[in-house]
Amino acid sequence: MKAKAVFYHAGCPICVTAEQSIANAIDPSRYDLEFVHLGEEKARVAEAESVGVKSVPALLIDDTPFHINFGASISDLK
Amino acid sequence: MKAKAVFYHAGCPICVTAEQSIANAIDPSRYDLEFVHLGEEKARVAEAESVGVKSVPALLIDDTPFHINFGASISDLK
Repeated sequence: MKAKAVFYHAGCPICVTAEQSIANAIDPSRYDLEFVHLGEEKARVAEAESVGVKSVPALLIDDTPFHINFGASISDLK
Repeated sequence: MKAKAVFYHAGCPICVTAEQSIANAIDPSRYDLEFVHLGEEKARVAEAESVGVKSVPALLIDDTPFHINFGASISDLK
């Protein structure tokens, strides 16, 4: 069974770069990766915060949030 | 041909977590990932800086440095 991973972003340039490089490099045979645009899916901002996401882009993997460079603070997406 | 990627770290707890989750999730069929411990390989600190690494853990992929959370500043590893 594949593990679930979530890439939270907001469409910012730094987010796009991280998506194209890191998110797309994740092994699709082991991870089921979901892409969530927090600017468009405001309802999921609270979910992201609840798992520890403080800024985007961030990759939630193995239930741990990893902030990748810095595009925008999650507080600016509310 | 596989693309080259480098995971720079310093053995710190945050580095280890990032290595176990993100670095190990990188698709090995597409990327040839090298692990560099900058605390033990001081000679490569300059190399890391030259490609834009400012802190560890960091993943260099597609010639772009991605800083993952924050373990230590590269200036503290010299």
